[in-house]
Amino acid sequence: ATVDKGVDFANYFCTYAFLFHQKEMLSDRVRMDAYFNAIFQNKHHFLEKTVLDVGTGSGILAIWSAQAGARKVYAVEATKMAEHARELVKANKLEGVVEVIEGSMEDVTLPEKVDVIISEWMGYFLLRESMFDSVICARDRWLKPTGVMYPSHARMWLAPIRSGLGDQKMNDYEGAMDDWFCFSNETQTYYGVDMSVLTKPYSEEQKKYYLQTSLWNNLHPNQVIGTGAIIKEMDCLTATVNDILNVRASISSSITAENTRFCGFGGWFDVHFRGCKENPAQQEIELTTAPSEDNSTHWGQQVFLLHPPLRVREGDGLIINFSMNRSEENHRLMEVDLSCEIRQSSGNNFPPFKNKFYIE
Amino acid sequence: ATVDKGVDFANYFCTYAFLFHQKEMLSDRVRMDAYFNAIFQNKHHFLEKTVLDVGTGSGILAIWSAQAGARKVYAVEATKMAEHARELVKANKLEGVVEVIEGSMEDVTLPEKVDVIISEWMGYFLLRESMFDSVICARDRWLKPTGVMYPSHARMWLAPIRSGLGDQKMNDYEGAMDDWFCFSNETQTYYGVDMSVLTKPYSEEQKKYYLQTSLWNNLHPNQVIGTGAIIKEMDCLTATVNDILNVRASISSSITAENTRFCGFGGWFDVHFRGCKENPAQQEIELTTAPSEDNSTHWGQQVFLLHPPLRVREGDGLIINFSMNRSEENHRLMEVDLSCEIRQSSGNNFPPFKNKFYIE
Ligand SMILES: Nc1ncnc2c1ncn2[C@@H]1O[C@H](CSCC[C@H](N)C(=O)O)[C@@H](O)[C@H]1O
Ligand SMILES: Nc1ncnc2c1ncn2[C@@H]1O[C@H](CSCC[C@H](N)C(=O)O)[C@@H](O)[C@H]1O
Repeated sequence: ATVDKGVDFANYFCTYAFLFHQKEMLSDRVRMDAYFNAIFQNKHHFLEKTVLDVGTGSGILAIWSAQAGARKVYAVEATKMAEHARELVKANKLEGVVEVIEGSMEDVTLPEKVDVIISEWMGYFLLRESMFDSVICARDRWLKPTGVMYPSHARMWLAPIRSGLGDQKMNDYEGAMDDWFCFSNETQTYYGVDMSVLTKPYSEEQKKYYLQTSLWNNLHPNQVIGTGAIIKEMDCLTATVNDILNVRASISSSITAENTRFCGFGGWFDVHFRGCKENPAQQEIELTTAPSEDNSTHWGQQVFLLHPPLRVREGDGLIINFSMNRSEENHRLMEVDLSCEIRQSSGNNFPPFKNKFYIE
Repeated sequence: ATVDKGVDFANYFCTYAFLFHQKEMLSDRVRMDAYFNAIFQNKHHFLEKTVLDVGTGSGILAIWSAQAGARKVYAVEATKMAEHARELVKANKLEGVVEVIEGSMEDVTLPEKVDVIISEWMGYFLLRESMFDSVICARDRWLKPTGVMYPSHARMWLAPIRSGLGDQKMNDYEGAMDDWFCFSNETQTYYGVDMSVLTKPYSEEQKKYYLQTSLWNNLHPNQVIGTGAIIKEMDCLTATVNDILNVRASISSSITAENTRFCGFGGWFDVHFRGCKENPAQQEIELTTAPSEDNSTHWGQQVFLLHPPLRVREGDGLIINFSMNRSEENHRLMEVDLSCEIRQSSGNNFPPFKNKFYIE
């Protein structure tokens, strides 16, 4: 499956060409603090070193790398944002160190290999956008054997949650179908055309949209009703595209809330800045997008809803099979197959269920 | 400028592949009534005739054409919606007459020339989407010399309006800039990066978004404060792509409201179904998207705002130069240059102004 560059721009890169969107990321204090601390508390990784920033956007990570003492920073950006990054570098008097290169990482040639690759490549639920592919490509071509990845590790998490969103979405879906029946009747009455054959495809389209598309949400920690489980661990120094094409995990979780509605699953990620074995971080930094009262991020969590919710009790066990693949139509979007068995402490068991979700 | 098909699908056709969107058009009673009446009050154009429906979507116009007695209807649709159209045709027992063809009009080969080309190709402010290009292509290849176009004529209108939207958008813009200054300060304080060089490009980006992008709006007729003027007339039987690449008009309008704020311009269109000279309609039908209390359409009107509004009086004259071109990045979007001189009946004159707008 080769990717048409023009299509990829129309679907994906276009948003990054707006300062508005870069500003949203630059305003995410949890994100910013993590990268800032990772760099400035580990200056030994940057001092007199060469750095590659994959997808520099506004140029922020490249600028910090230079401020931390890098000898040379290559800042690669696919969109016109590169021009703004170049201005910003200049205004911060770092044009002697940071070289902004407009182009796709996959197409760029550097004059040398680098000591550090830094990148903020994480999409919703870590892998949406599939941008890590470009980081892997950069690493395999341009990182010295002794080089360091920033971040160095990444993990994906899944946990059972409760949420009112499901009721809302179910209402929306039912409202849409009521509308449809009304519309279908009127089309017959006024215009003599029988629409009923489209009821099923319409309902499927609406179901997909309202009930099967994962939702962005900022969960409160008390909405997490059971233990979280890791569904993917990645070493950014060694992971291959093949490792992330399909994320598959069999995990279990136990309900920790007393007696509650089990409404679906929340998914999130964290990344760590640990340097590498031969050249570890002096100060390990974590960036987590887990549900949090005070430290929420623009990534929020991805919510996968069950319809209807189920009643569960403390101690009930969940056996979960999770599988995520890229969508065939757009390699930057994901499809998830999620099945779950509930082992109730009471002994009665719900029938196991299996759902398909779309991360759009 | 050749168009990349994949990009065009990602940018444009994708929405039409959803029944939800087709339903929105099928629920527009003004639109539906116009086409329905045009067909069924002019059955002589359809009886025993061959028809081509360019962009059949759900198949509705093809089905009506068949119900009105057509011998054969070719229904061409670029998106997967073609499959639903095929089902709908079958459910309405017209599969012997209507042949649904999935493909771009530009690529399709028909076994014969047709008597009628019917199409609902009109975008916002008539020409957004540039779909009429495909109708022209169909006409030049597949319409018999004696053939009829449905609709047969189209016009674009412009009129001065009053509206509260401008104040709202100006507020939004100013809010966005307040945000920016706050963000810029914080980035300096917390992260040691001077963002001020991006203030100008940010303000330009936000200005374009909030102040220079035309807005969809359902204007109330009493928001129109002066005479409307026609800026384009098209005979669908003879118009060429060249005729619509650039829409240029010098028009005048006089203020008819007593003493009011002149907040910008409203743009809309109408089309007529008149048949052709040798084979006129028995019943001429008009579809207008002009501001209306009871007969508004999903097209609404496009509003081009002035910042700040000006005070005008009954009898004041406007001399307007209007020029619309396709956007270079996306041939389905438009850019408008609008300049205006106000001849006040009082004798004092405002300085003339000139604005650029984007129809996105
Ligand atoms: N293959 C690729 N080559 C170059 N740039 C890419 C890329 N894939 C994604 N990008 C860019 O990577 C950026 C990711 S967003 C992160 C921006 C910046 N590093 C920051 O931390 O604020 C976007 O600007 C996007 O356009
Ligand atoms: N060049 C082209 N070839 C085939 N279909 C096209 C086309 N350009 C636009 N279309 C299709 O034309 C439709 C326009 S919307 C109108 C749909 C339908 N005729 C109705 O009146 O309800 C869309 O479904 C779009 O996908």
